[in-house]
Amino acid sequence: MITLEVRTHQREELLDITSEIEQLVSENGICEGQVTLFVPHTTAALTINENADPDVKRDILYKLERSFPRSDGYHHAEGNSDAHIKASLFGFSETVLVHNGSLLLGQWQAIYFCEFDGPRPRKLAVKISPDVES
Amino acid sequence: MITLEVRTHQREELLDITSEIEQLVSENGICEGQVTLFVPHTTAALTINENADPDVKRDILYKLERSFPRSDGYHHAEGNSDAHIKASLFGFSETVLVHNGSLLLGQWQAIYFCEFDGPRPRKLAVKISPDVES
Amino acid sequence: MITLEVRTHQREELLDITSEIEQLVSENGICEGQVTLFVPHTTAALTINENADPDVKRDILYKLERSFPRSDGYHHAEGNSDAHIKASLFGFSETVLVHNGSLLLGQWQAIYFCEFDGPRPRKLAVKISPDVES
Repeated sequence: MITLEVRTHQREELLDITSEIEQLVSENGICEGQVTLFVPHTTAALTINENADPDVKRDILYKLERSFPRSDGYHHAEGNSDAHIKASLFGFSETVLVHNGSLLLGQWQAIYFCEFDGPRPRKLAVKISPDVES
Repeated sequence: MITLEVRTHQREELLDITSEIEQLVSENGICEGQVTLFVPHTTAALTINENADPDVKRDILYKLERSFPRSDGYHHAEGNSDAHIKASLFGFSETVLVHNGSLLLGQWQAIYFCEFDGPRPRKLAVKISPDVES
Repeated sequence: MITLEVRTHQREELLDITSEIEQLVSENGICEGQVTLFVPHTTAALTINENADPDVKRDILYKLERSFPRSDGYHHAEGNSDAHIKASLFGFSETVLVHNGSLLLGQWQAIYFCEFDGPRPRKLAVKISPDVES
C-alpha cells in the first residue's frame, strides 16, 4: 500500500493523477492485475473522465456548483456541506485494471483527484494487486 | 463471504456501519488486504462520509431530497423512483483497504449504509480479501 | 481480462448486461470470487438497479435529463457535457461478488451498461478474479 501526497490549488479542482498512478504501476513491475485507489477524506473524491478538452473539467465543476451550490439551507457549521455531498456522489474509491503492465484506460480517459473543499494537502492510498494463479 | 443484517428505522437514513465492519475485519485476522461491501437491493446504497457532526448526514439527505424529490413526474407505480435514482448515484458497492489489521479510513470517515426507501430489514454482503504473495 | 462489445441504440439507454456477465462467470468455472467491470469511455457508465418494471429505467433517465439537461451553459464544443457529468455521477466501474458459481445479486438487481451519448459501439472490460487460499 502506497500513500501519495496530492497538493490541490483551488477550492474545487479536478487534478489529473494518471501519470503518477501509471508510474507506480510501472515501478511495481505488475503485468496483470488491478489498482485500487482510495481517498481518505470526506470532501475530496475520485473520478475518471476526458483528458483532452479542459472544458470538460470546467463543465463538470460548473454544473456541480449549479446543482449543489455552496449555500442551500445547510446546517453543518463548517459551510462545506456541498463538498461532502459532491464527494459522496463521485465516490471515494476507484478500481482500474492493469493489462500488459499498463493501466487499462480508454483513449480519452484520465484519472482525476477531485478537490471540493481546497486548497489543501491531501493523501491518496494506492494498492496494486497482481493477479494470482487460481 | 459474510451477510450482515441491517435494520433501518426511517424512510431515508445514513446508518454508520463502520464498527460492524471493523469487527468483522478483526475477527477474520486479516493483516493486509481489502474489504468489498455490496448492497443487494435497488433502493439502498453505500457511501463514506463524515463521522463527527451529525449535521453532515442531515445535509446530505436534505439536499438529495431537494434535488431528487419523491414526486417528480415519475411513471414507476411503487412511488419510490427517487430512491432508485439516489441509490444509483451513491452506488451499491464500496471497497475499503485493510492495513495493519484495521480499515484504512481517514480520521473523519465512517462507512454508511444508505437507506432511501425504508424502514426495512436489509442485507449487506461483506467480502474480506487478504493479500496474497504474488 | 475479457472485452465485451456492447451496441447501444439510443442517445441515452440503460442496457441490461446481467446475462452476458453471468454467462462469462459460468464459462470461467469460478466458484467464489468477484467480477470487476470497467467502462473505457467517458460518456458511458455502469450501474445496478431494478430488473422488473421498465419504468424504473425510464424514470432514472428522465430525472437525470431534468437535473442535468443537454444544454446548460456548457463550454465543451462537442455538446455532450451532460453525458460526461452523468457518467462521473454513476461511475465507470462496478464490483460484483461471485458466490457458489453465480453473481451475488439481489432478487431485483440487474447490471446496466449506461449509455449517455449514443448510439455507438462500446466496449466493456470484464475481469473475473477467483478467491485464493490465503
